[in-house]
Amino acid sequence: MGPVVAVVGGGQLARMMAAPAAALTINLRALVEAGDGAAGQVIPDAPVGAANDAAALNQLVAGADVLTFEHEHVPGELLAALEADGVAVRPGRTALANAQDKVHMRRTLTNAGVPCPQWAQVRSVGELADFGDRAGWPIVLKKPVGGYDGKGVRVINSAAEGGDWLTDGQVALAEEKVDFAAELAVLLARRPSGQITTWAPVQTTQVDGVCSEVVAPAPDLPEDLAAQAVQIAERIAGAIQVTGILAVEMFHTTDGRVLVNELAMRPHNSGHFSIEATTTSQFEQHLRAVLDLPLGAVDQQAPWAVMVNVLGSARTDPTTAYPQVMAAYPEAKVHLYGKEVRPGRKLGHVTLTGTDLGELRRRARAAADLLEGQGP
Amino acid sequence: MGPVVAVVGGGQLARMMAAPAAALTINLRALVEAGDGAAGQVIPDAPVGAANDAAALNQLVAGADVLTFEHEHVPGELLAALEADGVAVRPGRTALANAQDKVHMRRTLTNAGVPCPQWAQVRSVGELADFGDRAGWPIVLKKPVGGYDGKGVRVINSAAEGGDWLTDGQVALAEEKVDFAAELAVLLARRPSGQITTWAPVQTTQVDGVCSEVVAPAPDLPEDLAAQAVQIAERIAGAIQVTGILAVEMFHTTDGRVLVNELAMRPHNSGHFSIEATTTSQFEQHLRAVLDLPLGAVDQQAPWAVMVNVLGSARTDPTTAYPQVMAAYPEAKVHLYGKEVRPGRKLGHVTLTGTDLGELRRRARAAADLLEGQGP
Repeated sequence: MGPVVAVVGGGQLARMMAAPAAALTINLRALVEAGDGAAGQVIPDAPVGAANDAAALNQLVAGADVLTFEHEHVPGELLAALEADGVAVRPGRTALANAQDKVHMRRTLTNAGVPCPQWAQVRSVGELADFGDRAGWPIVLKKPVGGYDGKGVRVINSAAEGGDWLTDGQVALAEEKVDFAAELAVLLARRPSGQITTWAPVQTTQVDGVCSEVVAPAPDLPEDLAAQAVQIAERIAGAIQVTGILAVEMFHTTDGRVLVNELAMRPHNSGHFSIEATTTSQFEQHLRAVLDLPLGAVDQQAPWAVMVNVLGSARTDPTTAYPQVMAAYPEAKVHLYGKEVRPGRKLGHVTLTGTDLGELRRRARAAADLLEGQGP
Repeated sequence: MGPVVAVVGGGQLARMMAAPAAALTINLRALVEAGDGAAGQVIPDAPVGAANDAAALNQLVAGADVLTFEHEHVPGELLAALEADGVAVRPGRTALANAQDKVHMRRTLTNAGVPCPQWAQVRSVGELADFGDRAGWPIVLKKPVGGYDGKGVRVINSAAEGGDWLTDGQVALAEEKVDFAAELAVLLARRPSGQITTWAPVQTTQVDGVCSEVVAPAPDLPEDLAAQAVQIAERIAGAIQVTGILAVEMFHTTDGRVLVNELAMRPHNSGHFSIEATTTSQFEQHLRAVLDLPLGAVDQQAPWAVMVNVLGSARTDPTTAYPQVMAAYPEAKVHLYGKEVRPGRKLGHVTLTGTDLGELRRRARAAADLLEGQGP
């Protein structure tokens, strides 16, 4: 009974699809890196294999209604082959290409008239110098492929500093360093049939390039800019014909504009708050969207939701903090992903919802601190 | 990482423990009747075995931190043996005995001063006649052991009608047929260390002995009676030293009293609304309670929550109704348990939360009707 959704990836995003899949009797099958990893621990049908292994992908989709992803690391030629075989690949190869290659993404967005920071593809230190002189130093230099959580991104003050990413014919993406009042994310889901539902914009805070806190909805965001942010995300969704969740990371600039920073086409850290805070979570919505089922309501129940990430620290087992954290914060929703602790690694998150934003932020941070072994 | 909770039973209650277990990195191990049943479909560690098989139980608890249950069908002598072996059995054998034997339950409650309908253990048609003449016909006759969802319960108008349940030395429980304004349930969780959290009383509606609808909190229940209902449930919890969820089904009588009808010591149909409607769901709370972890907050977010059960009908696969039900009711939270359809069988439920109780009841019922194949 129920459809079969095949997902590539065995991390926390696949893990968090398991709950709504069980609720809806959607049979989740995950291609995981390790049987005892975050997803393998909780999904019975979890074959072990690599995301770039054609045979593993072919086995994964056998009998499945749809193929989807918790990361962007399936090579485009394998996606093309699966699509040619008639597999429902969602998001599709051409949409996903925009999450796989940041230069391609910038080109697509610019062609679609979406406001972006100034950018250029650079092939040499000379081109980098030209761009920096035009946009103004310092600038942001990104590897087009494979970066995440601050990896593959640097702020540089001169062209010489970026030279090591431009050897051997490598190209890089150079971007204006935007002065922002806040970082935002807009999440939406789109079905193949075109229906879109969009969550209200959220505010994200990064520390050392890693998401630290999300506040939903974004405080201090003027209504007209919120509407503009939603409009931008929906324009992108239509332009690239994405299916499933699209997360659009944006800057709210100090001069009152909204510019697009990054795209992701899967459930996203900035949407974890939706598990408790909105009628339909991003994980349920992603499953509904890729199955082309009608999308759920995304109203937020409480005025505010705050999500804080739990990162790896010296504490080797964060579950040992449960007696302390659950006693002090009985309203906290704790999520741990069953991942081995490494310093700085995303191990879980804590969500609080309510009416007093300052108090929610303070308590969510304090609960996460306890899980990270930083007691009061 | 994380504790191991062993649970006896492979139905929807074990299935619905999987989501909070995954969120908290609690390793759930379920002893299931069939590997492809409701729980086996979604729990990787799900050995197949019978609840009355000592060897299966011993294997189940090997390496587990605690043993708990989604039903009451583990024989008392096996529970006693496990406790003697030092296994943390929660709820414990003596508490659970009150959910296994209704005569024992009535005796315990009466000794604890808990208001019950008039009752008597009867061994013969003569004793049954005496009770009926005293309490007033018709009366309710119950089998002390093994009944559920209206099975093992009859309303009889004369002693002769009950004679077939009193042959061969069988005993039965005879109870006054209570005139009630509403049926209620009070759910609470209790830790071994004594902490208790109690949800607000809910109103339940039974059709043919099977729960059809739950409204939370109970409408039309005077504040003093609500407080009394909570007090009764907490008195029972302390008296029997229950651990985990205790569900107390009650009558709100037409003459303004609260009387206890039944007890269950596990997550209960009347608490399914808590998955979406309260900060901590009954399934998460049960896991926390049996692990002796601090209990979560049980505040209800929206003014009203309505849960309607989806029962088996002529439709052989209720998931085929998703396009229709999700389009018409984007706010509905649909849960299906992956169970084979049989007429009248509990296949799932639908929960809605919001402010307009009449509208919530109408829409929840209509969504369940669609899943049951009864279109508009």
